[in-house]
Amino acid sequence: MKSIDYKNVKIKEGFIGRLQQLNADVSVYNVYKRFEETGRFRALLHIRDDAHKAHVFWDSDVAKWLESAAYILAVRKDEKLLGIVKKTVDDICAHQMPCGYFNSYYQVYEPENIFKHRSEHELYCAGHLIEAAVALKESGADEKLYAAMKKYADYIYERFYVKKDAGFVTCGHPEIELALVKLYETSREEKYLALARYFVDERGKREEMRYEWADSRYDQSHKPVREQKEAVGHAVRALYLYCAMADLARIDEDKELSETCEALFADIVDKKMYITGGTGSSYHGEAFTFPYDLPNFYAYDETCAAIALALFCARLAKRKNAAVYHDVFERALYNNILAGESKDGKAFFYVNPLEMCEEAVIYNDSLKQKQHCPIPERVEVFDCSCCPPNFVRFIESIGGCIYGEEDGKIYVNQYISSETEIESTKIRMRSEMPYGGRAEICVQGAAELCLRVPSWNAGITMKVNGKRVEPSVREGYISLYCDGDIEISLDFHIKPRFVYANENVRQDGGRKAVQYGAMVLCGESCDNGKQLSAVRIKSLAGAKAAVGEYFTLDVKAERLKTSAALYSYDAPVAEPITLRLVPYFAWANRGRGDMRVWWL
Amino acid sequence: MKSIDYKNVKIKEGFIGRLQQLNADVSVYNVYKRFEETGRFRALLHIRDDAHKAHVFWDSDVAKWLESAAYILAVRKDEKLLGIVKKTVDDICAHQMPCGYFNSYYQVYEPENIFKHRSEHELYCAGHLIEAAVALKESGADEKLYAAMKKYADYIYERFYVKKDAGFVTCGHPEIELALVKLYETSREEKYLALARYFVDERGKREEMRYEWADSRYDQSHKPVREQKEAVGHAVRALYLYCAMADLARIDEDKELSETCEALFADIVDKKMYITGGTGSSYHGEAFTFPYDLPNFYAYDETCAAIALALFCARLAKRKNAAVYHDVFERALYNNILAGESKDGKAFFYVNPLEMCEEAVIYNDSLKQKQHCPIPERVEVFDCSCCPPNFVRFIESIGGCIYGEEDGKIYVNQYISSETEIESTKIRMRSEMPYGGRAEICVQGAAELCLRVPSWNAGITMKVNGKRVEPSVREGYISLYCDGDIEISLDFHIKPRFVYANENVRQDGGRKAVQYGAMVLCGESCDNGKQLSAVRIKSLAGAKAAVGEYFTLDVKAERLKTSAALYSYDAPVAEPITLRLVPYFAWANRGRGDMRVWWL
Repeated sequence: MKSIDYKNVKIKEGFIGRLQQLNADVSVYNVYKRFEETGRFRALLHIRDDAHKAHVFWDSDVAKWLESAAYILAVRKDEKLLGIVKKTVDDICAHQMPCGYFNSYYQVYEPENIFKHRSEHELYCAGHLIEAAVALKESGADEKLYAAMKKYADYIYERFYVKKDAGFVTCGHPEIELALVKLYETSREEKYLALARYFVDERGKREEMRYEWADSRYDQSHKPVREQKEAVGHAVRALYLYCAMADLARIDEDKELSETCEALFADIVDKKMYITGGTGSSYHGEAFTFPYDLPNFYAYDETCAAIALALFCARLAKRKNAAVYHDVFERALYNNILAGESKDGKAFFYVNPLEMCEEAVIYNDSLKQKQHCPIPERVEVFDCSCCPPNFVRFIESIGGCIYGEEDGKIYVNQYISSETEIESTKIRMRSEMPYGGRAEICVQGAAELCLRVPSWNAGITMKVNGKRVEPSVREGYISLYCDGDIEISLDFHIKPRFVYANENVRQDGGRKAVQYGAMVLCGESCDNGKQLSAVRIKSLAGAKAAVGEYFTLDVKAERLKTSAALYSYDAPVAEPITLRLVPYFAWANRGRGDMRVWWL
Repeated sequence: MKSIDYKNVKIKEGFIGRLQQLNADVSVYNVYKRFEETGRFRALLHIRDDAHKAHVFWDSDVAKWLESAAYILAVRKDEKLLGIVKKTVDDICAHQMPCGYFNSYYQVYEPENIFKHRSEHELYCAGHLIEAAVALKESGADEKLYAAMKKYADYIYERFYVKKDAGFVTCGHPEIELALVKLYETSREEKYLALARYFVDERGKREEMRYEWADSRYDQSHKPVREQKEAVGHAVRALYLYCAMADLARIDEDKELSETCEALFADIVDKKMYITGGTGSSYHGEAFTFPYDLPNFYAYDETCAAIALALFCARLAKRKNAAVYHDVFERALYNNILAGESKDGKAFFYVNPLEMCEEAVIYNDSLKQKQHCPIPERVEVFDCSCCPPNFVRFIESIGGCIYGEEDGKIYVNQYISSETEIESTKIRMRSEMPYGGRAEICVQGAAELCLRVPSWNAGITMKVNGKRVEPSVREGYISLYCDGDIEISLDFHIKPRFVYANENVRQDGGRKAVQYGAMVLCGESCDNGKQLSAVRIKSLAGAKAAVGEYFTLDVKAERLKTSAALYSYDAPVAEPITLRLVPYFAWANRGRGDMRVWWL
């Protein structure tokens, strides 16, 4: 399935439209400001400063920011932003080595160690720079970086593929692989594809250098990738690698690689994914752990990992479409990913727990050396600040994940208010999602439309040109032939529903979450007081949904009250309360407090 | 209340009698063997070996072992054991410095740093050596170490109290304080009491050296002890300090210190104690955390901390008796403490979690650098092997915690099969506890008896010389005047009961534990299969208790089964099962597996 490029999809209104506007107005500038202050842009000038060394991954932060800017500039006029982009590109190009190599850490601080340490993010940075270059070229904003990074890619090709004289074979942090596929798809030069294939297939074929504190599963080099059927190790590394594998499976029609991707996707979705679409449950190694291990307070669930899962879903769908990929994409988007940014667009979560306990945070704050403990508030910049620009670039590129085309059929995969034109068929969609289940789709032209049925729907009402039609659902899609001017009105009924985790998830035993459409809801202490762990919801009958500043759902619940003793033979008594739930993505926007997703 | 010394209490049979026999036959020798192999006894010879340096706390391990041996030798003839004791004492005395100082690490490896680092366990080791010396003297086994350690105590007095020229004021690990009180009570020399008072009262009055990774709460030096009303920091350090405070409150009739002790006891028992009597919930700093923070899988609950809590209870009762102290002692003894040793008497737990997940352990085992994760099996020796000899010495000295005497009244505080003679009144007790609730007490002589009513009782049947008597319970005790030969039959009715944790304990919300008399029960996967988190017990009606190799309770329960999906809108269905529960202390004696205390 061909996905319709983000540049051909105009998002001007609605929930995602407003989010993109916030990103373009606030987030992209705020991330820039924080990166500028912390030296990430200055580092491109390659002025040695031993007291404030560049980090090995700083170039990737700048690159993701450039990519964000590219997506914004493709659809918006912003001279100020373009100016920063041009200046940044000039700085990079001015300090690129004649051979094509560019790295703001190694060129300045360890030139003798260039391409010697596979664990130090060199090719990871290169990959993000290539992604930025491709995005800038395709956006029409800049071609200079594209030429420069093509030269860098040629140098990597020469060293790693032709001469094989680099100090390692594959990079500890996958990313270059998917970037090379992007470069191939823009340049159509086979060498980049060959190099991507090489990096993917050489991975895990030999013992390579690794961190002392992690085994080779950490960076997915424990066995050849085609033999990997279980998602292991650092979740972002894993999912970036799987993205490249899905790309190659599609381009090469590689059945074996395709089956591997499907097994990995199933392993994640069936055993290792939070209800929020979060993955990588462990702080230690930011990693997948073992099946059904999904701690809530100690969830790691990096924002980048949820983004990477969405990217993997989108690539799997391009290879061979299935509704489940878009369902998982939607779950990740409206829950873990959106939780990554504050309401004002300025601050970000790196880690996305499903439970917050303020006292644990206060206790941890008081320790000199902190235990791993989720932070209760988003912050504007981290030492390892990968998530903020990743969030911005993902949100800005989301238009590319709405529509698809295959065998003359047009697919509507996400219900996001937008306009597009596909092979002379014009589509205009207005959607209430995620707060409501209705979408109006106006089609001009002739086409077979395939409309995804979200798995959370509790019924469908469909009208075509005002007339009620009984939808026939096949493999998660409603198929409809359109000719002329057609107005489709879709209502995917939303009712708040309990969701139960598999009996093997020991952390959620006897509990349930509440989902409203695609949104997983949570309760916060600012609305409900503390002791959320003692709140029981017996039924969702009579639950009242409202959309104010945020969506809210008021639910009849009860609080289990005990005596004051620490332990008692007396069963707790239930005291009726009204529990206010808000979208999980909206949590922690009203100060510190407790939060919970899973209820008695 | 005067407690009757362990030497005047013969324990020959029953549950604790068998345990003491196992300790004397197996544990004390096995701990010796492991300590011998690992160099702890060799280190006393002070032969420098830079490749295998003595640890700073090794002397304390040997000292606790000597103390164990003392308690055994007081009531049993064992020439072999006595021989090892004599040899060990000779080794210590031969290498004591002329001034009295003794430390197998500092004398050999850092003589220039003697009494310079408060965090390096010097006075902690001294304290344990003093305790061992007092125990050996009182057991009649040896007086040589007593003389030597008195000399050491005199040297400490000189340096810390008279000259005040040591490099610190108070030791980072409390222990010396309670040891000095013991030395005072044996020697009646006021100087030791004065020094104990000094160490207690100087604590927290100034900024002292501390570990970089912990704040001053870690070793209870964050404020003067009399101002400390909340239990904080390293649990064993805290409780050893509180023991000395309770001793001083008693001896000095110090009201302020007494109130502080009561506040600290209440803080622990009302907010920071596991149902097993475990304390110190956090791996980080082996520490108390914040109120109601009682994680089950990640419980730290060091065996030594539960022992220290029991020691604190015993001292509080000597100061001013109350039934609650013996209730908490009993809870700690029959749950966390007993769990510390394996059935064969050879292996020990350091950490005592209330939940085990085998897969988490397998996952952690596979990581090169382990995360903090409880171990699923007891081991014979640890690097930091404080718990094994602490367990042995505690169990061997338990006779001293059964009977008390105050104002001519004789108190029976624990129902442990034993014989004693108090002021010409002879008492012989046979008890079924912890497996049953019956105790037979034969009294010869005249005395007012005060029989503790365990808080778990579900009714009392009492007979005196075969005749039913209605017991009148006041403040947790049945009072009875005896004259002549009297046989008292007590039956504290046991029925399995649900226990509910306070609503603020977020880790136990909606769950309950099952208690049978003083025993908290648990379920293991070897009896019940995995997925214990999905087991629900609705009622304990019809539960069947049996005593075989261990006590077992078979309970009608149900397992919540879900579909295979990770998340589902379908509520789980309940499948009836019989759940076999065993005492918590008996867990992990039948191989690795899952374990759980709190049930749906």
